[in-house]
Amino acid sequence: MRDPVATAMQVCPVEIATAVLGGSWKLTIVKHLLEEPLRRGQLKRRIPLAPDRTLTRQLRELEDDGIVHREVFDHVPPMVEYSLTELGHSLAPVVTVVDSWGATYRWTIDATK
Amino acid sequence: MRDPVATAMQVCPVEIATAVLGGSWKLTIVKHLLEEPLRRGQLKRRIPLAPDRTLTRQLRELEDDGIVHREVFDHVPPMVEYSLTELGHSLAPVVTVVDSWGATYRWTIDATK
Repeated sequence: MRDPVATAMQVCPVEIATAVLGGSWKLTIVKHLLEEPLRRGQLKRRIPLAPDRTLTRQLRELEDDGIVHREVFDHVPPMVEYSLTELGHSLAPVVTVVDSWGATYRWTIDATK
Repeated sequence: MRDPVATAMQVCPVEIATAVLGGSWKLTIVKHLLEEPLRRGQLKRRIPLAPDRTLTRQLRELEDDGIVHREVFDHVPPMVEYSLTELGHSLAPVVTVVDSWGATYRWTIDATK
């Protein structure tokens, strides 16, 4: 577990979730992996705006925090596949409600322009 | 609207929500303001671990993004009260599901120790 998460564990559940999921792209990664396990390149194509290094770091943090499982297959060239752990799958209702709220936010802001 | 939010508006609803709510303490601030409007000092007492400057910055960002309303009352000394806008109140289901998932996360991690 990473330090920010360990600290949040002393505070409240909302802070725990923010520490685990707060970084840009993390919940978007989870959203795509909820559909199916994906290889690195497939994930990159679905999130084209995420810089390579950021995507790599976020995946590693999600792995450290027990959300993402990284499987290396003994292929030539080597193949890495990402999937969700059981904890990762438990994020389905969070993704649903956050996705819906984000759409409401965009709609509201657009309507006031 | 702040730049990170404007950028996320081009991506997907999940990124919009992350850009608006992703910082430490932001969703915790919303959680407390869902109960009742609070003065600066009351909010600080409910979130004692949030550093003063961070709390101030997060409140200002939430205000910029249309989630929090800041009312200054003409008292001596001046009184500032924070409340949620209509958009802020629409976060109630997000807070509920995130709070619940954070509790699940803590329980799961504690159980594997």
